[in-house]
Amino acid sequence: MFEAYSYAASAADKPLGPHEIQRRDVGPNDVRIDILFCGVCHSDLHMARNEWGGTNYPVVPGHEIVGRVAAVGSDVSKFEVGQLAGVGCMVDSCRVCNACKEGLEQYCESPESFTQTYNSPDKKSGGVTFGGYSTSIVVDEAYVLSVPENLELAAVAPLLCAGITTYSPLRHWNVQQGHKVGIVGLGGLGHMGVKIAAAMGAHVVLFTTSPGKIEDAKRLGAHEVVISKDLDQMAAHANSFDFILNTVAASHDLDQFMALLKRDGTMTLVGVPEHPHPSPSVMNMIFKRRSLAGSLIGGIAETQEMLDFCGKHGITSDIEMIRMDEVNQAYERMLKSDVKYRFVIDMATMER
Amino acid sequence: MFEAYSYAASAADKPLGPHEIQRRDVGPNDVRIDILFCGVCHSDLHMARNEWGGTNYPVVPGHEIVGRVAAVGSDVSKFEVGQLAGVGCMVDSCRVCNACKEGLEQYCESPESFTQTYNSPDKKSGGVTFGGYSTSIVVDEAYVLSVPENLELAAVAPLLCAGITTYSPLRHWNVQQGHKVGIVGLGGLGHMGVKIAAAMGAHVVLFTTSPGKIEDAKRLGAHEVVISKDLDQMAAHANSFDFILNTVAASHDLDQFMALLKRDGTMTLVGVPEHPHPSPSVMNMIFKRRSLAGSLIGGIAETQEMLDFCGKHGITSDIEMIRMDEVNQAYERMLKSDVKYRFVIDMATMER
Repeated sequence: MFEAYSYAASAADKPLGPHEIQRRDVGPNDVRIDILFCGVCHSDLHMARNEWGGTNYPVVPGHEIVGRVAAVGSDVSKFEVGQLAGVGCMVDSCRVCNACKEGLEQYCESPESFTQTYNSPDKKSGGVTFGGYSTSIVVDEAYVLSVPENLELAAVAPLLCAGITTYSPLRHWNVQQGHKVGIVGLGGLGHMGVKIAAAMGAHVVLFTTSPGKIEDAKRLGAHEVVISKDLDQMAAHANSFDFILNTVAASHDLDQFMALLKRDGTMTLVGVPEHPHPSPSVMNMIFKRRSLAGSLIGGIAETQEMLDFCGKHGITSDIEMIRMDEVNQAYERMLKSDVKYRFVIDMATMER
Repeated sequence: MFEAYSYAASAADKPLGPHEIQRRDVGPNDVRIDILFCGVCHSDLHMARNEWGGTNYPVVPGHEIVGRVAAVGSDVSKFEVGQLAGVGCMVDSCRVCNACKEGLEQYCESPESFTQTYNSPDKKSGGVTFGGYSTSIVVDEAYVLSVPENLELAAVAPLLCAGITTYSPLRHWNVQQGHKVGIVGLGGLGHMGVKIAAAMGAHVVLFTTSPGKIEDAKRLGAHEVVISKDLDQMAAHANSFDFILNTVAASHDLDQFMALLKRDGTMTLVGVPEHPHPSPSVMNMIFKRRSLAGSLIGGIAETQEMLDFCGKHGITSDIEMIRMDEVNQAYERMLKSDVKYRFVIDMATMER
C-alpha cells in the first residue's frame, strides 16, 4: 500500500477537505496513474452529501480522471509508463455475466453490479473505492482507457463521464448523417451531446429554457436552438426528430419533447430527477409508436471508441479549471448551473 | 346510394337501436361486403358514449368486420364476388405520406390522419363513416383484407382490431422463438396477445390480477401465469423478459413490469388509460437501458400478414356470439370485464 493525497468529505454536511488515503500496490494486471486532472460531476456532489443515500465516509469523489501511467504490473499489455491514461465511472465488474461479456459492463448483472470508481466495495483492497480527487489511483488495466495525445488533457477529463453518457445513447440509437437530433439542456452533459451529435453528422437542435444560451449552443455546434418555453417554436418542430437526448435531471414535462419525435423516434433520458417527471402521455407514444428510454454511461470498449472518436474530431469538453481547494465553491456554483460547462480540478494544486 | 340496416347511437346517453343508413354505390375501386359478423371493441363503447369527445351522432360503431364480397368495382383486382373479406379500423388514408407509402397507414401523416371505419369524415360520400354494426359496407379494395377460408368466420372478426393491435407490436419488436414475452392483462387484446406470441415461438408469461384466469390463460397458450399482486412471484421474474406487451388500459403501476425487462427490453402499451399511469421510474429505464413504448393497431399489409399467420396457425379469437339487439347489454357486461374474450354480433339477427 502507498499513500495518496486526496480531498474527501467526512460527513454529509461537511465540506470536502484534505485527506490521506491508501492505494493498493500495483498488482500484475494493475496500472498506477498519476492523476493530472479530474472533472467535477454532479454525481460527486450528490454522493458527497449523501443525497442518494448509501455514502460511506470519508468519501473521495471523482470519476472523470486523466493522468499519466506511473507504473504497470507484470501482466499489463495495453499500457506503458509515461502514457496518457483515463479512468471513468467503473474500475471493475464481474466480467462473467452476459453484459460484461458483451462489453456493457455498466449493466453488469452481478448482484453488486459494477465497481464504481468511488464509494463501491473494493474487491481488491477491501473497504471502499476512492475516486479521482486524488494524486494517484491504481486500476486494473481492463478498466483503464487510452487517451488521445492530440487533445487538451484537462478538457479530456469530462469525456470519461459526461462524454460517454451522451456518446453511448447517440451511438446505440444509431444517430448518423442526415438525422435530426434534439439535445435537451445545455449543461455538462448537454454541451457534450451537442458536440458529439454534430460530429456524427446529425442536424442538431438544442433545447433550452435560457435565451442567454442560444449563441453558446451555436458555437458548440448546434444548428438550431429552440427555447422550449416558446410553444410556437416547439410546435414548428412537431413530428420531426429521429432521436432526442434529454439531459435534464430536474422534473419537467416530457410530452412537449415526445411530441417532437417522428414515428418510431426515441427520447432517451440520462438524468434521474429527484421528483418524478409528470407521467408521460400514453397517447403520444401510441399514435407515433414512439419510445421513451434510459441510458447509463457506457461500457469500457465504447468509452475507448468515444475517446478515439473525440481524438479524431478534436472534441473536448468546455471547461473551467479550478484548484483542488476550490471544489466546495465549485459545488455551490454547480448548484446554480453557474459553470461553462464542466469544472476540472488541476491536481497539481493538491496540498501535499 | 343504397340503404343498409344498422344499429346506431343517437346521443351519448342513448342506447344503440335500429337505424337505416345510406352506403355509397360501388365505385371502380370499391368492394361491397355483406357483413356476416362484427366484433364489439371497447372503443365502440367509448365512441358511442362520446367518452373521447368528438362523436358525431348518429354513430354506427364496429371495426371488426367480416363478410362476403357482394359486388366489386370495375378496377378491383384483389377480390371477387363470393370471397370472404374483412375490414378493420381503417377504410382510407392519404396514401402519399411516408407512413402510407411504407404500409403504415395507421400512422398516416396527413392532417386528418387515416379515415376511421366509423365516425371519421367520409372523403368519398361526404358526412361521416359508418361502421360494421350494419348489414353491408362499401370500402376501397386497398383497405379490404382477404380472410383465410379455414377459420371459424365469426371468431376471425376480432382479429381485425384486437388481433392486429397485438400482432403488430409483437412483430415490430421482433418477438421470436426463444424469447421470453410477457402479456399484461387477459381481456380481448391480452388473450390474442397470448395466442399470437405463443404461435411466434415465444415463452409466454401472462400477468393478471385474477387467480381465476390462470387456467384459461394456460389453455390459451400461456406457458406461465403470474399473479401481478404477488410480489414474490413478480420478483422471481426480475430482469428476464425480452418484451412485454401491456394491454391494460386502466391506470396502474408500470414499474413493476418495467423491472421485469432484461437490459434493452421494451414494454409496449396498447391501451390509453383514462387517468395517467403513475409516472414510470427513470432509474428503472436508465439502469437497464429499458424502453417504454406505444403501438397503434397495424397497417393494411401487416393486417393481411396477421390474418395469413392466424390462418396458418389456426388462431382465432375466443368469442361469445350475441344478437344485434343484445349489444347494449354486451356493453354493460364489457364494462365489468364479463366477456370471454370478445363479443361478436351475428349480423343475421339484424332487424330489417
